Amino acid sequence: MNALDIITKKRNGEKLCREEIDYFIHGYAANRLPDYQMAALLMAVFFQGMDFEETAGLTNSMLHSGDILNFKNVDGFKIDKHSTGGVGDKVSLILAPLVAAAGLKVPMISGRGLGHSGGTLDKLESIPGFRTNLSVEEFYRQICDLGVSMIGQTEMIVPADRKMYALRDATATIESIPLITGSILSKKLAEGIDGLVLDVKTGRGAFMQNFKDAETLATSLIRTAELNGLPTTALITNMDQPLGNTAGNWLETREAIEALHGNGPEDLVDVTFALAAQMLVMAGFAANVDQARKELQKLIINGKAFQKFCDMVQAQGGDLAFIDEPEKYPPSKIILPVLSEQEGYVQKLDARKIGFAVVHLGGGREVMEDRIDYAAGVVLYKKIGDFVRENEVLAELHTDRRDTVETIRKDVLSAFEIGEERMQKPELIFRVLKKSES
Amino acid sequence: MNALDIITKKRNGEKLCREEIDYFIHGYAANRLPDYQMAALLMAVFFQGMDFEETAGLTNSMLHSGDILNFKNVDGFKIDKHSTGGVGDKVSLILAPLVAAAGLKVPMISGRGLGHSGGTLDKLESIPGFRTNLSVEEFYRQICDLGVSMIGQTEMIVPADRKMYALRDATATIESIPLITGSILSKKLAEGIDGLVLDVKTGRGAFMQNFKDAETLATSLIRTAELNGLPTTALITNMDQPLGNTAGNWLETREAIEALHGNGPEDLVDVTFALAAQMLVMAGFAANVDQARKELQKLIINGKAFQKFCDMVQAQGGDLAFIDEPEKYPPSKIILPVLSEQEGYVQKLDARKIGFAVVHLGGGREVMEDRIDYAAGVVLYKKIGDFVRENEVLAELHTDRRDTVETIRKDVLSAFEIGEERMQKPELIFRVLKKSES
Repeated sequence: MNALDIITKKRNGEKLCREEIDYFIHGYAANRLPDYQMAALLMAVFFQGMDFEETAGLTNSMLHSGDILNFKNVDGFKIDKHSTGGVGDKVSLILAPLVAAAGLKVPMISGRGLGHSGGTLDKLESIPGFRTNLSVEEFYRQICDLGVSMIGQTEMIVPADRKMYALRDATATIESIPLITGSILSKKLAEGIDGLVLDVKTGRGAFMQNFKDAETLATSLIRTAELNGLPTTALITNMDQPLGNTAGNWLETREAIEALHGNGPEDLVDVTFALAAQMLVMAGFAANVDQARKELQKLIINGKAFQKFCDMVQAQGGDLAFIDEPEKYPPSKIILPVLSEQEGYVQKLDARKIGFAVVHLGGGREVMEDRIDYAAGVVLYKKIGDFVRENEVLAELHTDRRDTVETIRKDVLSAFEIGEERMQKPELIFRVLKKSES
Repeated sequence: MNALDIITKKRNGEKLCREEIDYFIHGYAANRLPDYQMAALLMAVFFQGMDFEETAGLTNSMLHSGDILNFKNVDGFKIDKHSTGGVGDKVSLILAPLVAAAGLKVPMISGRGLGHSGGTLDKLESIPGFRTNLSVEEFYRQICDLGVSMIGQTEMIVPADRKMYALRDATATIESIPLITGSILSKKLAEGIDGLVLDVKTGRGAFMQNFKDAETLATSLIRTAELNGLPTTALITNMDQPLGNTAGNWLETREAIEALHGNGPEDLVDVTFALAAQMLVMAGFAANVDQARKELQKLIINGKAFQKFCDMVQAQGGDLAFIDEPEKYPPSKIILPVLSEQEGYVQKLDARKIGFAVVHLGGGREVMEDRIDYAAGVVLYKKIGDFVRENEVLAELHTDRRDTVETIRKDVLSAFEIGEERMQKPELIFRVLKKSES
């Protein structure tokens, strides 16, 4: 077996066997195969694809390039949620303590934001003192004690993905369903979970901009996860406009706290409950989604979900003062309203533009090395379907960057399309996919 | 402009502009761009192709990564021939001195053999003392003095191709028409010639095994050469069976000497004359191909072609003793006949198998580092269309490798397909392509 033959085989559209995939992935992870051969294979996969069996093999091979967490001795159903990313997506911050309050164990390993898309780790780290770099032992103990912990990737988990992702980023091979599937699922499988719920986003602010692609990715993820023995449900949800009314790390964390108090915006709460309800059903904690929703609602009303969030923040070193009184968080130097120049109904609100506005306000990254201004971001006062008068506030910019804020005001204004036509609130959840349906 | 955008563009099937190609090729040649990004681009080109304008840009960009020979002050028409490679193809050894004897200037830069396919440099170096590594100054002076010189690639000529070819070889991106075109033509353009004749081979022993692919390559070569200002004619010729009656370096050199004496096998002489005649016509040394053939025939009969060959061998340090008396060349230790096991007409003679037999007899390379036994090879006594009796000699193996010769005898025997049906001698020259036709 050699790398050239494997590249040639995939290039010719043939199916790779498990041994060939292992040879390539493990050889690459161990620096026995050069970057250029992996780059050639990745581009060949981009063009020729992989079937579900190959994708499952790829995922498993990547998984075994590093450590796999073992929660076998931890009582209860271990479950996680993963989102393919979007703008204003602070669901994890609400959902993880919420389902932990219901009695599930949530060992959540998250990522950082890049480009227009935010990341859960950055949102958590906007809480002063919050540590996302727990050791595996600390993580394990917290899952036992609290039922929930949210951390970042460690060096030891799926090192093959770390290397491959950096290479894909430099070789235009990100946008490949089997490669995306392997990257997502290898990391989720490494959490040692019993079940997984996926939020596959589609629309302007999502990685998969059209529904068909999102459905293809969701199907690939479910089939691949099942072939690796992980029961998985996927929701395809709308990411045409940002989720909730905020985009930017602390602004979103604050909105998540509001939601845990029962005061979240409708779309954010709906998506969070839809995902969380699937998790309860999967774990056998509820007979169906409706019953699960009622249970979740109770945990919001009785304060147990918020309490779980506070316990987690405290356990991970975060300053509870800002959780108790979010208004005390140091604000941005500039808070600039974006006024509507016309009257009418919001027809469209471009999530992608809002996402990039957050980056340019200082709240995101253009490259992985950028530092983040946690307070920076956008607050949305109007969303699709809302009526707005001339000179009424559409949004608010939070930033310390005086010299670029005017440019960004124009960008954010242009993200709103306003017209005379009355608009329905857009559909939020397009489809729920499980094994039998996918 | 950056490498990732250029890879993405080609991956998406878009046309690259000249600046983008230059950025990538020159950046790579200068080690500013990493191998993995070039590997990704090469694989994207493999799948998406390049149009003639892009291919011409690629060729020109590769050409300008190094030195270009300048024969502007050398009187006369500078011309070269290039073959896409095959088995028993010793045409260059006859053709170069032949057309030089006719008054053309032939600054020929050739390659080495690899795999089943032989190389002109190895054949020349089978002559004791023959130097193929002349300096550019020596090469230039010899073209002025003799009108012909045959050397190998120098470090300074098209360094981009050297790097790219090694990378293509390791990334399964050899078989791409635009990349093959760029590799061949950048090196020919670097010779500073006024015209080019191509021998694009097709059949079992050729790189392009079917006619359609050979025609596509020939068209790409002609169009790309013309876009770079180099008048080019291509012949598509048959490489189902070896050309001439020998395969192996010294055996072929000796056959070339025979041909220069007027005693060459018919197919070898026909292909050589067809190519050489096109060169004379292109240079304006003959009104048409028939007139050119007569002129060439004269140069064989009057000994001028052979004399030019001797002058070149002498100028490049080769021992003329073996040119004058080839029978004095130290023979292989083993000369084993391959006897036919049946009676009939030779239906097929697999050039590829003969090519690999030469390698296994010691006369070729499996990898570029292998040393060559110049005396080793195969002499063919029967070719397609010939009648053979049981136990009559089909071929003769020349080798020092006692332990493998029996295996190779069987391989060579299996290269012959013998049947009852009478066979015509196969067609040799399928098509002549010029600018207007391609």
